[in-house]
Amino acid sequence: MKFRRSERLIDMTHYLLEHPQQLVSLTFFAERYGSAKSSISEDLSIVKETFEQRGIGSLQTIPGAAGGVKYFSKVSEMEARKFIAELCEQIENPERLLPGGYLYMMDLLGHPQVIHQVGKLLASAYAGMDIDAIMTVATKGIPIAHAIASHLNVPVVVVRRDSKVTEGPTVSINYVSGSTKRIQTMVLAKRSLKEGSKVLLVDDFMKAGGTINGMISLLAEFNASVAGIAVLVEAEHDEERLVEDYISLVKLQDVNVRTSAISVVEGNYFSENIQFS
Amino acid sequence: MKFRRSERLIDMTHYLLEHPQQLVSLTFFAERYGSAKSSISEDLSIVKETFEQRGIGSLQTIPGAAGGVKYFSKVSEMEARKFIAELCEQIENPERLLPGGYLYMMDLLGHPQVIHQVGKLLASAYAGMDIDAIMTVATKGIPIAHAIASHLNVPVVVVRRDSKVTEGPTVSINYVSGSTKRIQTMVLAKRSLKEGSKVLLVDDFMKAGGTINGMISLLAEFNASVAGIAVLVEAEHDEERLVEDYISLVKLQDVNVRTSAISVVEGNYFSENIQFS
Repeated sequence: MKFRRSERLIDMTHYLLEHPQQLVSLTFFAERYGSAKSSISEDLSIVKETFEQRGIGSLQTIPGAAGGVKYFSKVSEMEARKFIAELCEQIENPERLLPGGYLYMMDLLGHPQVIHQVGKLLASAYAGMDIDAIMTVATKGIPIAHAIASHLNVPVVVVRRDSKVTEGPTVSINYVSGSTKRIQTMVLAKRSLKEGSKVLLVDDFMKAGGTINGMISLLAEFNASVAGIAVLVEAEHDEERLVEDYISLVKLQDVNVRTSAISVVEGNYFSENIQFS
Repeated sequence: MKFRRSERLIDMTHYLLEHPQQLVSLTFFAERYGSAKSSISEDLSIVKETFEQRGIGSLQTIPGAAGGVKYFSKVSEMEARKFIAELCEQIENPERLLPGGYLYMMDLLGHPQVIHQVGKLLASAYAGMDIDAIMTVATKGIPIAHAIASHLNVPVVVVRRDSKVTEGPTVSINYVSGSTKRIQTMVLAKRSLKEGSKVLLVDDFMKAGGTINGMISLLAEFNASVAGIAVLVEAEHDEERLVEDYISLVKLQDVNVRTSAISVVEGNYFSENIQFS
């Protein structure tokens, strides 16, 4: 069966989007479409150009016999700025305010397109980096971690507050919650993380950084190291933060329970040295 | 700026894949590319044909002034059969066996490509149906629910075993666990589900069906109704199952702790009347 160029471009686009950060050989596409490698090469340069112009992502071509093409999911800076501005506006809605000054966020964390964009923005910051796994704490970080994972093509590891019979042997640590100064526990199934892994830590919310710090302690038990720290929301915090070198999409500056005013600005995302598409 | 057909096809493919189950007007694409609607129409018929031939999904065209195109994410039957066979093989690995006859599944639930495919297969069964939300119970159902949601473009609602201060007022119910006959609690934030919603219930594992049944009781408190039930693994169960009309990808037939033999077969997925791409 022979494929026309238009069909190849559509199928290639779908294939690459579904296989981010994986080397796909020219031979693979040549056999898939019954086409000469020279035609596939031409197709790929059209795809590359369009992906880059339209802010879909970037395509890296690896020359030689073992060569091929690798797709990296990336946002454009314009798309990122637009999304973060919208997010700030949505989070500032006074209806989110809960007793104790907490904010209701489950609607955003449950919205597939919001989560997809959050994942794409955060993944863009780590595209092409050497990451073996993404770690988060149950439960609100899970959709964010999976959204990032779908772009970076690495597994997600979920830390729990308590151990479960369905996980087998576990490693647990105690840590001090940054804001409340209380001792808490974190548990991770022993077989869920390989020794020596490079791990991207993810959470929905960070104030003093206690939870992230707990995950760092847990990593030490696996001889694993931190490859990065990404949070959706960081909160303004007077005392010393326990964590450095993180990326946040938005920053919660102030919550005034009396006037129901919530003040949200963009996080440190744009001050990091991110390569946009 | 003018776009060539090849560029339009690549960008359209990306756009449609990112916006499943949403009506996109011809005018939108015509303005996006500065092209005549007649060219866009031709583009879309090429995309439609390729999507259907390659098992990417289906494209529904809605004629008239308010018309446009809607993309439905669907697997081909061949792809579904291949994936489920691989899944059975992976789950039968005796290394999964934990004390008490439980199976370790966190590696599969944390694997982005496995979860993506699980979501695509289960979403295919409900493509185009009238669904307002997807409900699951924390924590292992969450990645599956989100993967389905990304294809169906509906929000995910997460039920918990305990209430959290960050969720505001909640509704809670007690239910009887199907296998252990113990009384358990389920909690859902009041504002996370609209009254009268049609809800797809999702879980990673179903034995007697107690958890699913608990979710059904919870729905009643919201005057909401069941739009479908989808599970990754159903387990063979001697007594009467509490739940009917569900879809499962695989069925755990037997776990022999003495010989470490795990027997897994395909679930009822192919006996349901699913329209493949």
